Amino acid sequence: MRSFEALAREYIDKTAGFVVQCMIEKNLRISLAESCTGGMISQIITSVPGASGIFECGVVSYSERIKEELLGVPKSIIEKYGVVSSETAISMAENVMRISGSDISAGVTGIAGPGGDGINPAGTVYIAVIYKDKRYAANLALNRFGELTRQEIRLGTACAVLKKAEEFINRH
Amino acid sequence: MRSFEALAREYIDKTAGFVVQCMIEKNLRISLAESCTGGMISQIITSVPGASGIFECGVVSYSERIKEELLGVPKSIIEKYGVVSSETAISMAENVMRISGSDISAGVTGIAGPGGDGINPAGTVYIAVIYKDKRYAANLALNRFGELTRQEIRLGTACAVLKKAEEFINRH
Repeated sequence: MRSFEALAREYIDKTAGFVVQCMIEKNLRISLAESCTGGMISQIITSVPGASGIFECGVVSYSERIKEELLGVPKSIIEKYGVVSSETAISMAENVMRISGSDISAGVTGIAGPGGDGINPAGTVYIAVIYKDKRYAANLALNRFGELTRQEIRLGTACAVLKKAEEFINRH
Repeated sequence: MRSFEALAREYIDKTAGFVVQCMIEKNLRISLAESCTGGMISQIITSVPGASGIFECGVVSYSERIKEELLGVPKSIIEKYGVVSSETAISMAENVMRISGSDISAGVTGIAGPGGDGINPAGTVYIAVIYKDKRYAANLALNRFGELTRQEIRLGTACAVLKKAEEFINRH
């Protein structure tokens, strides 16, 4: 049986190239605001030759201060819903889209582990993807059975963001 | 003979863990402004468990507009020296340090390829690393013989930044 990591990497390689190609053809630009994935999704998209034409901006905002001051996520959202929440993920995506003027954006906030944050277990990862007037947000709850590593949780998150971006770009 | 990629990944795995551990012990924080590495160095550092305590902020600024508007690199520097220059790399590092308040920062701007930009060949990569009052900048000129791929140029750049960060943190 192939490993989770091998399957995720295969999916990522295939999907990232496809997403970048579609964006080039449709003249679309993407921006990303990543917390627990720490730049992994930006790195995946920019690893495709030609990505400089479609990748506008990425912000890796680990701390609450950077989420608020650099991205512009309202303090009230973080206080009301928590930094690990779909509301914060949506605000991250909205704000990086506002900053960059991109057509599509994603926000990621969660716990890659090892270990939870006292409230959420490792694997609690909220993603938001915005494409024009369409919005998607979900808790991936990637580690229901406690078997995934930090790296696997990050790779699983990257797969989910690419999958939703691909759907949005192709269907609309 | 082992591949360039395998050697680079081994060096990165070893060095990233060591750098993060040293930073935790010395209570230091890092921030990064990446252009051609596209988030790869942020992703490498945040892949180490415990990195949330030392990683402050990463900005992936592919476009000149994001370098100017989000990071605050002066337009005059880009116009005078070019976007691929040690001056721009230093300004990227200075500005992400200013935004984040980190103790150490790095800036990366260059051409990962395939192909050059009309002025610089692929592999022309300027890195800057700042630690407190110390500054380092260099053109890595990674592809003098035209044999490295886009991925290898990005990995080689990550190795060089980690090496300089390790030196600065350990010697001072």
